[in-house]
Amino acid sequence: MGEFELIRRYFSDCGARRADIAVGVGDDCALLRPDSARLLAVSIDTLVAGVHFFPEVAPDALGHKALAVNLSDLAAMGAEPAWFTLALTLPASDPDWLAAFADGLCGLARRFGIRLVGGDTTRGPLAVTLQVHGWVAQDRVLPRQGARPEDWVCVTGNLGDAALALRLKRLGESVPEILQQRLDRPWPRVAEGLALGGLAHAAIDLSDGLAADLGHVLAASGVGARLRLVDLPRSPKVQATGDWALALAGGDDYELCLTLAPERFEEARTRLAALGCPLTAIGQIEVTPGLRLEGPEGQPITLVNSGYDHFG
Amino acid sequence: MGEFELIRRYFSDCGARRADIAVGVGDDCALLRPDSARLLAVSIDTLVAGVHFFPEVAPDALGHKALAVNLSDLAAMGAEPAWFTLALTLPASDPDWLAAFADGLCGLARRFGIRLVGGDTTRGPLAVTLQVHGWVAQDRVLPRQGARPEDWVCVTGNLGDAALALRLKRLGESVPEILQQRLDRPWPRVAEGLALGGLAHAAIDLSDGLAADLGHVLAASGVGARLRLVDLPRSPKVQATGDWALALAGGDDYELCLTLAPERFEEARTRLAALGCPLTAIGQIEVTPGLRLEGPEGQPITLVNSGYDHFG
Repeated sequence: MGEFELIRRYFSDCGARRADIAVGVGDDCALLRPDSARLLAVSIDTLVAGVHFFPEVAPDALGHKALAVNLSDLAAMGAEPAWFTLALTLPASDPDWLAAFADGLCGLARRFGIRLVGGDTTRGPLAVTLQVHGWVAQDRVLPRQGARPEDWVCVTGNLGDAALALRLKRLGESVPEILQQRLDRPWPRVAEGLALGGLAHAAIDLSDGLAADLGHVLAASGVGARLRLVDLPRSPKVQATGDWALALAGGDDYELCLTLAPERFEEARTRLAALGCPLTAIGQIEVTPGLRLEGPEGQPITLVNSGYDHFG
Repeated sequence: MGEFELIRRYFSDCGARRADIAVGVGDDCALLRPDSARLLAVSIDTLVAGVHFFPEVAPDALGHKALAVNLSDLAAMGAEPAWFTLALTLPASDPDWLAAFADGLCGLARRFGIRLVGGDTTRGPLAVTLQVHGWVAQDRVLPRQGARPEDWVCVTGNLGDAALALRLKRLGESVPEILQQRLDRPWPRVAEGLALGGLAHAAIDLSDGLAADLGHVLAASGVGARLRLVDLPRSPKVQATGDWALALAGGDDYELCLTLAPERFEEARTRLAALGCPLTAIGQIEVTPGLRLEGPEGQPITLVNSGYDHFG
């Protein structure tokens, strides 16, 4: 089976049907009908075998995760998913692998109402690049640079589960299923990002670790922050390790970190609770640049490894 | 120098300044202002080291070509370039390599009025994925499926130069500079695609070879075609080889192949001549599916290798 037939077979009907697609997969370009009332949000991300995932990862999990991490970027901007494109580099033509990959990818796409509109399949070392497109009204954007002194710093969900799964796997220990799922099949906080539009001042999704990602928000906003480690939301398994670094610098959480005025916290918490998502206040924005960490007794804590930097 | 600093240094001001960018490089997503009167055209393409280019290729040529082949897809749709994103996978952090790559990439971007609005840099085997975004009015779209019986089949420029360069290099022979440039620095036919809007019935850009790419147009349109080999536009160097396959199945031409009503040919030729681009009629669309080739004396010719298929 050749490249063109593979593409037709697995990717010609991937994700939700949408009325705003004039030309989808199969021409030189996709042609899409814009939403003139909102801004177009786009984000591109690559997952490389051996760097972002184990080469032997289940292909359906990889399909899921490749889209999930990109949807997470839309979520962090408060944008509603619309379309995506896929550039897939494969070492060989393997119909079973492709079928499972497409299953994970297109299943998640349907859940989020997003559709595959174009792509490119090439031969080479296994890698998946996805670009997502979404829409957000100007007054609902969640930028990085909006954090203000006195804002509370909050995060959705729990932190550190994926990092713990990865650590256990690297140590050759058994990985509890609940942690493995958090690593393999993150659920992007798209609904939560939409619910926070007009409420949060700034937001980012946690892919490289809380300290590093919050650091981007602080730098972009020209402010600093103080975090209370005891308030970091962690699952019992992560708490049991006694290791703060899992939640602070682990990465792969795909939760949202946001800042908002303290008096809006309850409203935000209530909105997210209605979506089944916990929201936890973990610290406060300060005028002085830099990230300061407080230990259980209020003592200052120094973080050595501040996040994942591909070329650091 | 870390990933984030590399990105800031080389890619924060890449391409033309545009007023339709609300948020560019540096947030979770780019935020772009749509053109409500036209359709959004998007296309994604990957170039992998060792497959699409020699790993030792000059980085500025690679930067140029990665954008050029994507712009060529916009050209084939009749779309005007607006923005692009870049997913760059590199084996190591090499500031000199990156500086040269950015130089080739951003230089071409400025020439076509397109701007880099987002990206992702990862570690791994060298590969470049680009997505381009452009705009095209509904009545100026150049689709693949519009070819009609009696249409003339035409191509811009010359065919086979890049394929001859590649062949000479693989044979260890010296490659004339003019051919090397055609392989390394294709010039996308964007202005030509825009000029053909509302005039051509169907179009595609020639990346995999004339026979394969025209085959896509024929299949999508449910028609066939007859080509006169002697009419294929070829440079003196390609003609001197006496090998039709260079122009028919060589690939990497990045010229446009289009079909139009015979009575519109002169108008199209005149429009492209004003842009300095030759347009050559090479055959005709027919009702009977399939591609038929006529040799110099009108005899039928059989093509064995019909184009480049990554998994064929």
